[in-house]
Amino acid sequence: MTIDEANRRATQAVLESRPVLVGTAPAAEVIAGMHKHLILHAGPPITWARMSGPLRGAVLGGVLYEGLARDDREAQALVERGEVQFAPCHHYRAVGPMAGVTTASMPVYVVENRAFGNRAYSTLNEGYGKVLRYGAYSDDVLQRLRWLRDVCAPVLGKALERSGGLDMKNLIAQQVQMGDEGHNRNKAGSALMARLLAPHLARTSTRSDDLAAVLTYLADNDLAVLNPVMASCKAMMDAAHGIAGSTVVTCMARNGTDFGIRVSGLGDAWFTAPAEVPVGLFFPGFTQDDANPDIGDSTITETAGLGAFAMAAAPAIVKFVGGTPQLAVQSTLEMYEITVTENPAFGIPQLDFRGTPTGIDIRKVVKTGITPRVNTGIAHRRPGIGQVGAGLVRPPLACFEQAVEAFAATLP
Amino acid sequence: MTIDEANRRATQAVLESRPVLVGTAPAAEVIAGMHKHLILHAGPPITWARMSGPLRGAVLGGVLYEGLARDDREAQALVERGEVQFAPCHHYRAVGPMAGVTTASMPVYVVENRAFGNRAYSTLNEGYGKVLRYGAYSDDVLQRLRWLRDVCAPVLGKALERSGGLDMKNLIAQQVQMGDEGHNRNKAGSALMARLLAPHLARTSTRSDDLAAVLTYLADNDLAVLNPVMASCKAMMDAAHGIAGSTVVTCMARNGTDFGIRVSGLGDAWFTAPAEVPVGLFFPGFTQDDANPDIGDSTITETAGLGAFAMAAAPAIVKFVGGTPQLAVQSTLEMYEITVTENPAFGIPQLDFRGTPTGIDIRKVVKTGITPRVNTGIAHRRPGIGQVGAGLVRPPLACFEQAVEAFAATLP
Repeated sequence: MTIDEANRRATQAVLESRPVLVGTAPAAEVIAGMHKHLILHAGPPITWARMSGPLRGAVLGGVLYEGLARDDREAQALVERGEVQFAPCHHYRAVGPMAGVTTASMPVYVVENRAFGNRAYSTLNEGYGKVLRYGAYSDDVLQRLRWLRDVCAPVLGKALERSGGLDMKNLIAQQVQMGDEGHNRNKAGSALMARLLAPHLARTSTRSDDLAAVLTYLADNDLAVLNPVMASCKAMMDAAHGIAGSTVVTCMARNGTDFGIRVSGLGDAWFTAPAEVPVGLFFPGFTQDDANPDIGDSTITETAGLGAFAMAAAPAIVKFVGGTPQLAVQSTLEMYEITVTENPAFGIPQLDFRGTPTGIDIRKVVKTGITPRVNTGIAHRRPGIGQVGAGLVRPPLACFEQAVEAFAATLP
Repeated sequence: MTIDEANRRATQAVLESRPVLVGTAPAAEVIAGMHKHLILHAGPPITWARMSGPLRGAVLGGVLYEGLARDDREAQALVERGEVQFAPCHHYRAVGPMAGVTTASMPVYVVENRAFGNRAYSTLNEGYGKVLRYGAYSDDVLQRLRWLRDVCAPVLGKALERSGGLDMKNLIAQQVQMGDEGHNRNKAGSALMARLLAPHLARTSTRSDDLAAVLTYLADNDLAVLNPVMASCKAMMDAAHGIAGSTVVTCMARNGTDFGIRVSGLGDAWFTAPAEVPVGLFFPGFTQDDANPDIGDSTITETAGLGAFAMAAAPAIVKFVGGTPQLAVQSTLEMYEITVTENPAFGIPQLDFRGTPTGIDIRKVVKTGITPRVNTGIAHRRPGIGQVGAGLVRPPLACFEQAVEAFAATLP
């Protein structure tokens, strides 16, 4: 099999994938190997010593949330004694936005890829402002996480079960026709999710207060669908992983210090380089100086042909991440240069329903020097603060150069 | 005051309008002059003898729904004896899609223009397929109307009351950024409406079966928000009506036989000409030969700068009405040629957030020969059948020529 054939097989798996959001469950119940002293995080592997501020903040919050410590000083001491293990979400078929911290008792969405049988997981979106994923861990942040665990996830889970599962491929296809790129803009997708689930929520909720609270959660959060979209992209890209001879990128992820990628034909290896600092628009009171380097597993959306790759479909996003509607179109057009195929299921109306650019080829990236574009949220570089803006970034070319070298070494 | 000044005043009223969906009520309770033997219809005034098939079908359905006859033959006899009065919805501050038939006991949405205090009304959307507004009147159609009256409208009304009113100006602004043009495509707006109302529905519904049924109604109908959008446009355009010396069109409407317009500075006069037959895409089993001439008050959306005027914002609509995404952009660009101003509240992302073309000037239409563009549903020309497709149409130039002549006659 030639490299091109292997890449066609890999991207065909992406196109054939049928991710369905089937339910919610505590992470430890569905993620094999999950335990109380294991904290999953976004991006490639990293030690506590090298973690950036927002990831450290989220880790401390995770320790407190699991009841392993009474305050942040105790939590930090516990971590420094080595009593907490760290691993990338990606090693456990999971993805998490920004810090991506996922602990044993946190509820996760379960996405099933009905074409291939593999599953993927992602936490529930916490909403805006001071939230764990941006490194905040105050009492109100933890209180919100407990409500997600005790009320929101079980209520959503029952509704999802009754619905027979939410067809995420169809939902993503619709949102791409409604001005979302599926990463930083998920307004239409979140509204569709709320509308689709509402009747099932009404049929399965036994407490009307909880029902109203969950419907309010869905009504107030334009990112509610981001986490299911991410898990769907993870399920799609896992189906494309492990094809011998393929140079297609199946994962791009950042831990706030390093940017890392994995490649279909290169097994479990990560190819990493220092993460760049995103450039974008900042909330009042914050500036570029407050920005942490790039962080989060949400680049799984770009990896699967969404996010900045689908930006032509989402011209209104420039009000949030900066740039112009022309830049949005150019972003997508440029990404066709470094990808293997187009996903006809995700047709972009503005480009005459051309499918989103899909399947980044490390060879094309290195040959053209065009690195993937990424839309992203921006975290404050200190722990405990939260989101300060949103913007645009690219991974370091070095990740792709290393991958090409490693690939070359596998050739006879 | 010059004509241009008068037109600026008229369009300023449109831009300053703040339509808010405040509730639902039986038509006879809120529409002054409504009574059991009065049937409101879309478009300019028309007699039974000149009504087209779908309007006749809807009238018969309205008579049956009000319990004035036991079957369609009795209903027709009643009408032919002159025991039913007809009047345009527009004469009663109301608008109705397609046939637009509105009777005394039908529930209507109440939209309040909070900038000027005027109100406007529109029936609840029935959904797709065999529905009264397309001229169907079988038992299941009437059954559905009774459910809208007895369950859906009261449940929605209570939720709207609790919400403090749905800000329709804001909702329309959002949907225009989400691929809707507010006339034939209302998918995003309907999802937003469902999502915004769901928590209030959960707080106010006392019967969980009814709650689930209403949430299902909102989940299944991508046109649910069309009728509130139409009433909002009516409230906006009524605020612009009656300004002496203004040549701005404040109403365009069709009854299936005639197309009619009204002009701000020309009082209650209608300027009419035979309606064109829309050209478009047809459902399986139907062709252009089945199409009725243009029908409905939904052109109030174009009159207010939405629909075909905002088509650049809705490239995905071409899959439904025909044409290409390029045509969608051209439609909007062309409409700037015949309008007075742009509505900054309705920014089109694809055109760098330029406001939708607003305030059709009869002088510009006649001078350029460019008639307004209209997106529309297409009814079968025979009564009792329903929708057969969707497409594009324009009003006859003669309406505007007559209006210009009438205006000239008012000048000293």
